[in-house]
Amino acid sequence: MQNFTHCVPTRFVFGRGAENQAGQQVRDFGGTRVLIHYGGGSAVRSGLIGRVQKSLEDAGIEYVTLGGAQPNPRDTLVYRGIELARKENVDFVLAVGGGSSIDSSKAIAHGVRYDGDFWDFFCGRAKPQNSLPVGAVLTMAAAGSESSNSCVITQEATKTKRGVRTELNRCRFAIMNPELAMTLPPYQIASGATDILAHIMERYFTDTPDVDIIDRMAEGAMAAVIRAARVAVKHPDDYEAQAQLMWASTVAHNDTLGVGRKQDWGSHQIEHELSAVYDVAHGAGLAVVFPAWMRYHYQKNVMRFAQFAVRVYGCGMNFEHPEETALAGIEAHEAFLREIGMPLTLGELGIENADIPALAAHTKKTNPDGTTGGVFPMTPADIESILRIADR
Amino acid sequence: MQNFTHCVPTRFVFGRGAENQAGQQVRDFGGTRVLIHYGGGSAVRSGLIGRVQKSLEDAGIEYVTLGGAQPNPRDTLVYRGIELARKENVDFVLAVGGGSSIDSSKAIAHGVRYDGDFWDFFCGRAKPQNSLPVGAVLTMAAAGSESSNSCVITQEATKTKRGVRTELNRCRFAIMNPELAMTLPPYQIASGATDILAHIMERYFTDTPDVDIIDRMAEGAMAAVIRAARVAVKHPDDYEAQAQLMWASTVAHNDTLGVGRKQDWGSHQIEHELSAVYDVAHGAGLAVVFPAWMRYHYQKNVMRFAQFAVRVYGCGMNFEHPEETALAGIEAHEAFLREIGMPLTLGELGIENADIPALAAHTKKTNPDGTTGGVFPMTPADIESILRIADR
Repeated sequence: MQNFTHCVPTRFVFGRGAENQAGQQVRDFGGTRVLIHYGGGSAVRSGLIGRVQKSLEDAGIEYVTLGGAQPNPRDTLVYRGIELARKENVDFVLAVGGGSSIDSSKAIAHGVRYDGDFWDFFCGRAKPQNSLPVGAVLTMAAAGSESSNSCVITQEATKTKRGVRTELNRCRFAIMNPELAMTLPPYQIASGATDILAHIMERYFTDTPDVDIIDRMAEGAMAAVIRAARVAVKHPDDYEAQAQLMWASTVAHNDTLGVGRKQDWGSHQIEHELSAVYDVAHGAGLAVVFPAWMRYHYQKNVMRFAQFAVRVYGCGMNFEHPEETALAGIEAHEAFLREIGMPLTLGELGIENADIPALAAHTKKTNPDGTTGGVFPMTPADIESILRIADR
Repeated sequence: MQNFTHCVPTRFVFGRGAENQAGQQVRDFGGTRVLIHYGGGSAVRSGLIGRVQKSLEDAGIEYVTLGGAQPNPRDTLVYRGIELARKENVDFVLAVGGGSSIDSSKAIAHGVRYDGDFWDFFCGRAKPQNSLPVGAVLTMAAAGSESSNSCVITQEATKTKRGVRTELNRCRFAIMNPELAMTLPPYQIASGATDILAHIMERYFTDTPDVDIIDRMAEGAMAAVIRAARVAVKHPDDYEAQAQLMWASTVAHNDTLGVGRKQDWGSHQIEHELSAVYDVAHGAGLAVVFPAWMRYHYQKNVMRFAQFAVRVYGCGMNFEHPEETALAGIEAHEAFLREIGMPLTLGELGIENADIPALAAHTKKTNPDGTTGGVFPMTPADIESILRIADR
């Protein structure tokens, strides 16, 4: 196990009707004038925004609202949010929605008190130092942004999607009512489950030895997600399945299942290119990229992929040919993704294979030597090969 | 899954040499004058206290020290600590040791700014409101007090052991260096592992339905503890085994593995009687009580005990007679406890069976109707029956 520092100070308020505690939570964390930031009109039409507003009013807290956060949230709306928050003297940002609303809220919170361009944080020119506090009312299980240290924004003009990691990205509180996810279409539920699994898998496929406790907790969480996703895509109104997914989204991405180990994140970088350029759902993009990434790399650490196959998907261990077990695990994962309605090929996402070299070349380099990925570093040529596997 | 609120704000600093960050951590959390509270002379002789002191000095932080915290920490030392902390104008308590030092530190921290008798918090007459911040340098994996909301103290005169749960019990930071546990005798390592497992099991044996994600994470953690404990009792200097146990001690008791479900805690209440009266190691007491508790209750929820047997100990499922699988899991747990050198009978703890009625009668009642235990409420007669099973 590697040395690590880990802290998730987020207060989780989980369960039916939890959104009615929004006002109390904002007050507990010192907010007096709130920017409520949300996505589409469905949050208004469903009455959720109204309930959140009432909760704030009951707590004596003023607010302004800004809707319009889209999947793959844009810098353009962040600029508008920063301007509004400054004009209205907001001291707290309350995200209502999924990862897009929350990430957009975090970016606004970083930018309000920063003199320069908030994009500086996302292109590595500056680090957030003095951000507004953010809270979240979560409406879908996916990104885990409600307690992660991560925030990802797309620069619209350049179609560049970049993330920033900082402890200032942790929400003060996360209100998590699984009922709010019941109105999602099955495709979004499936995309969310795929994203959750990918967050665990980016951490799981490590080369750090002796990480048994986190391995086993992660394997348990993955098995639970697979089981719950199968139920939730068929029965979106199944509270218990939504509850498993919602809690999984949080532990998957706040490092409860990632401490003490090298992590990869190469698949996420590749997917960011797909969703930045083609605006596909992040989870659907991961459904295409991750299995291809697994097929490209598994022979470099056969026993870890075999462990995944046996412990997560219950594959039988082939002790004579463990690589067959490893491959069986990848096939089981692909079959699961198919079962819940996810794409597995670039074609299904509407991506032309002529674009592959450009996508590979533009993928963010995460290592000093110009490669991408912590555990299995990839050159643009490797990434191109992975995208060609996905072009099946 | 039940509604819940969950927050573990503790900052974990994990790994080799982590104790050298003590000064920086205290400073980060606003401490300027510290009470270092520890247990026996071994922490001094090993040089640990010296390293912690140097770290504080390097950070420009003043300190006073108080040693002497014992297993089953006593109210008498807490009173001395409160007096010292007041006299010396201490604004931060730094525990160095295991659960005893940390719990004793928490009790001191609660008492310093309280006008009444600190025991008021433990007998239910008052609730902590204004406690000093506490940090921990952990030296053994067991109680999980480094991030739990729990604190247990024994009133020496009456041999009454009582706990208090409050969010004010969460340490600001927990410094966790598995190397510090390498000098422990195997019996203490085994007691610690037993305590860790009991903390998970008190949460695991629930009757709350649809708690799959936490079930599976808990099963994974238990399997990891069992594996690591077998290594660590034979090779206390195995860093990686100690690392698994140390991280497990934290997740086992800070509710990472307990949210959203009814929990029991009856076994802990029974054990508190044993350790209060006979001063046995808490973990060793749990090794005697928990299997007896399992044998007494398993037929009330056969499928949950069978799930434990299959998923944690790898027992084969007997679909025709699941109660046999449930029993096989209890036997496997007993065999594991024996293997790591734990007692299984009251006699091995030096407890006379003539004392059983008094122990049962004095066990803390946790329910309004005078019974003990959240999932399987027990009358004193039930407790007596369990102790008679342990008197084998």
